[in-house]
Amino acid sequence: MTSNGVWEYGNGNGIGTSTNGNSIENGLGSSIENGHGKGNSNVNGNEKVNGAKVIKMKPMESEMLREQGHIMVDFIADYYKNLEDSPHDFPVLSQVQPGYLRDVLPDSAPDQPESLKELLDDVSKKIIPGITHWQSPSYFAYYASSTSVAGFLGEMLNAGLSVVGFTWLTSPAATELEVIVLDWLAKLLQLPNHFLSTGKGGGVIQGTGCEAVLVVVLAARDRILKKVGITSLPRLVVYASDQTHSSFRKACLIGGIHEENIRLLKTDSSTNYEMPPESLEEAISHDLAKGFIPFFICATVGTTSSAAVDPLVPLGEIGKSYGIWMHVDAAYAGNACICPEYRKFIDGIENADSFNINAHKWLFANQTCSPLWVKDRYSLIDALKTNPEYLEYKVSKRDAVVNYKDWQISLSRRFRSLKLWMVLRLYGSENLRNFIRDHVNLAKHFEDYVAQDPHFEVVTIRYFSLVCFRLVTVDGDEDKCNERNRELLAAVNSTGKIFISHTTLSGKFILRFAVGAPLTEEKHVTEAWQIIHKHASILIRNGNC
Amino acid sequence: MTSNGVWEYGNGNGIGTSTNGNSIENGLGSSIENGHGKGNSNVNGNEKVNGAKVIKMKPMESEMLREQGHIMVDFIADYYKNLEDSPHDFPVLSQVQPGYLRDVLPDSAPDQPESLKELLDDVSKKIIPGITHWQSPSYFAYYASSTSVAGFLGEMLNAGLSVVGFTWLTSPAATELEVIVLDWLAKLLQLPNHFLSTGKGGGVIQGTGCEAVLVVVLAARDRILKKVGITSLPRLVVYASDQTHSSFRKACLIGGIHEENIRLLKTDSSTNYEMPPESLEEAISHDLAKGFIPFFICATVGTTSSAAVDPLVPLGEIGKSYGIWMHVDAAYAGNACICPEYRKFIDGIENADSFNINAHKWLFANQTCSPLWVKDRYSLIDALKTNPEYLEYKVSKRDAVVNYKDWQISLSRRFRSLKLWMVLRLYGSENLRNFIRDHVNLAKHFEDYVAQDPHFEVVTIRYFSLVCFRLVTVDGDEDKCNERNRELLAAVNSTGKIFISHTTLSGKFILRFAVGAPLTEEKHVTEAWQIIHKHASILIRNGNC
Repeated sequence: MTSNGVWEYGNGNGIGTSTNGNSIENGLGSSIENGHGKGNSNVNGNEKVNGAKVIKMKPMESEMLREQGHIMVDFIADYYKNLEDSPHDFPVLSQVQPGYLRDVLPDSAPDQPESLKELLDDVSKKIIPGITHWQSPSYFAYYASSTSVAGFLGEMLNAGLSVVGFTWLTSPAATELEVIVLDWLAKLLQLPNHFLSTGKGGGVIQGTGCEAVLVVVLAARDRILKKVGITSLPRLVVYASDQTHSSFRKACLIGGIHEENIRLLKTDSSTNYEMPPESLEEAISHDLAKGFIPFFICATVGTTSSAAVDPLVPLGEIGKSYGIWMHVDAAYAGNACICPEYRKFIDGIENADSFNINAHKWLFANQTCSPLWVKDRYSLIDALKTNPEYLEYKVSKRDAVVNYKDWQISLSRRFRSLKLWMVLRLYGSENLRNFIRDHVNLAKHFEDYVAQDPHFEVVTIRYFSLVCFRLVTVDGDEDKCNERNRELLAAVNSTGKIFISHTTLSGKFILRFAVGAPLTEEKHVTEAWQIIHKHASILIRNGNC
Repeated sequence: MTSNGVWEYGNGNGIGTSTNGNSIENGLGSSIENGHGKGNSNVNGNEKVNGAKVIKMKPMESEMLREQGHIMVDFIADYYKNLEDSPHDFPVLSQVQPGYLRDVLPDSAPDQPESLKELLDDVSKKIIPGITHWQSPSYFAYYASSTSVAGFLGEMLNAGLSVVGFTWLTSPAATELEVIVLDWLAKLLQLPNHFLSTGKGGGVIQGTGCEAVLVVVLAARDRILKKVGITSLPRLVVYASDQTHSSFRKACLIGGIHEENIRLLKTDSSTNYEMPPESLEEAISHDLAKGFIPFFICATVGTTSSAAVDPLVPLGEIGKSYGIWMHVDAAYAGNACICPEYRKFIDGIENADSFNINAHKWLFANQTCSPLWVKDRYSLIDALKTNPEYLEYKVSKRDAVVNYKDWQISLSRRFRSLKLWMVLRLYGSENLRNFIRDHVNLAKHFEDYVAQDPHFEVVTIRYFSLVCFRLVTVDGDEDKCNERNRELLAAVNSTGKIFISHTTLSGKFILRFAVGAPLTEEKHVTEAWQIIHKHASILIRNGNC
């Protein structure tokens, strides 16, 4: 598909065509009850403004929300139905060319209202072709951003109630539900009691793992600076492995940590790309001897490249012995730890100061939902609190009150716990565990295909739903092998039938196959393997391997 | 209402009772087509796990999403209908006591799925009473968080498509629509051309104004540190008025700016709480003489306390002459500048380096949607870029591609431009202007009531939809006057019929009446005044004024 052909894309496959009889002919202006009749929104009840006819509207009307909301539900249900039934109408990786959209949209916003029908037609014809379908059953790139029916309903209710819970007062339920649901989730993960709200710690929902690591770096920074003085900022050092998510380095730079004080410890295949505790111990000793101040360790359970698991037990003991804050970034794999059989991967969590998972990655909670637990909530609050007069209020039982504005970067916040609560209740923890197990089994299934094919190799140990693999060359030429895998990646992704991604490990170009989209079943994994195998065969046949 | 009584709250008023015949009896597990029949979700198709019966479910099924989505639309439409028709069933400021929710929710997540009916019953009986109704027509506190039908539909579609647009490749439409729509909005605001994507600048949607000011502080910090070296961090100084939003100080502290280098210039009633340019000039000269490095000015158009407008023309000239980054925080009032008659409030914007409005505050775009424009996008990217291997990709026309991950704190991002695009198209700019004008007229209406009552005074000049006012005492005793206004605030808010907020200006306790909720009409403003007047009369009658 080229950028010339995309405008016909999606025609005839039911997008925008409701299956339950709702009409999308009406614009938002059409159902207003202030004297304008139903029907075509540009013929009734106009008034003149600047010489043009304007449909007078209101921003909110319950019956308009109802009518148009039903149309939107059908549009979205049809999208999922078509993603599943007609996958080949939806290239998983969008095939448009840069700048495609500007060519087909006007240069400026319209003065007059347009109808929902016009808008949804544009979504189908102009937006959908430019979407990389993260929810496609054949999406296997990066890590998934798992949506679900419950997560979607949660987003709807959040957007509907539309409250802003920056302090307890501004919506007590928004704060209290977050406290309670993060206690629930902490228990499912068997986190130590000090992470519960009943102790000195507690949970808070951040938008992303990036925000989570930033706020704990700041909390740890300010905790140490309180002791050593702000002028010691240039002497602060942090530790992580070279596999740590890029957001860690970014968080440190944001916080004024000097770039040369960010120690990214080398990993290699001998430890399956886990952070070696002896390297950490050595680096800390070395830094202390030179007068640096070690204050933060970022360990990862399920690294971004290969889902490697840093050994929390020895790392945590080192951190504890030196009084260094240890954060555990378990954005992806932490979700699996609600299953007893995966809980071992966070053994040692009792010595961590903070722990984060992205429930929108693999707990079916839709973007954005990134629970963070801290051992000592006061260190977070000390770093992030604000006390403007206009937010002051008196309340009985002050100690029972949390003001989440002091646990995050922003003042405003959405009611995200609603969604997490709905996911936990509408599925129940047993189903959530089974969703995860199903994904892991599908990844195993793919791994088996790879392992049985002599032209391929599985590169790292697979613990979860990510398989790192590559095509191998007979002559062992690494450069050539990397180039062949690049070609294979480009070839399979340009089919639009699947989307996989890549990484590099020890200089090797590696392909990543990550299961996690909510519609994925065995047949999709099998088809993905067939596509990869077919394109590999072409490369092999052409003498390129 | 006490915390003992809230569980009956909302019964009988239709919350949870669909008006279009949809049933909410079914759980999420009920419409699965893998052999389980419809009906009560805990009787069909069970399998044993750990000895308990588990309803086997899938995370996503289009027909389940359709069925349950329709139920949720009705639930939300009913909520708005009831907010409007039966306002007294919904205390605007929640009247629950701290800890109320823990008493009525279980201690842990359920193993088994619960039905949507059970969940929505709990929302009606346990969550809604704990909500402060930001969308109530009688909500006049802080600044509004304006929802709308189009904004709600936009949130639905965003949650439905659920793409993650961190790079162009991961959903080209998400990036390109954001570029285009922020150009549209820049044109509506008549921003200078350098803020458009066609120049060196461009727009990006942040989550909040707090994130916006943080990223530009970081961009400006790193721009100056590149010249003077990172060891000069302790000499960097910033300027704002003492009316500036608390997020500015927080952003500076996050960025490692020393607290004593944050100059919050004094304002007073003589300039209607605007930042005095002569104070800025003097402070900069003073700091330069002492060897400090001035690098950032945060000006505000529509301060949080009183909607004061800093004089951008002289401030910008000062900034320009010293080469200091000037950011304009117009989170609330900037939205009004789409109306030609309010555009004058951002005259001088051509000398600003960055400009931010919260479209979720007063452009009906639902949380979160905070457009930020910068004059030089490269300074933002230099401060915030990351380049992990797994996100590398090749694309034709590389220059046409924006990777928004490098314009913000987080890597992941929601498809927020979709919502803004829908708001602009489904209302058209003339309706949006009229919504704003309607709110300003309602505020004028309230101001007239205040001005005509000798027991009250309007405290600051009203430009937009915020009225700052207070009850005056006959003897001019300021402490007593403050105390009376505190009492009045508590009295009116405890009725649950309206919610207004407060601030302090020059030591005076001030009441704030901010119009901006999407259902507010003249009758609600009149009723609000009657409630305030009635409670003031009681205080006066009791000899308290």
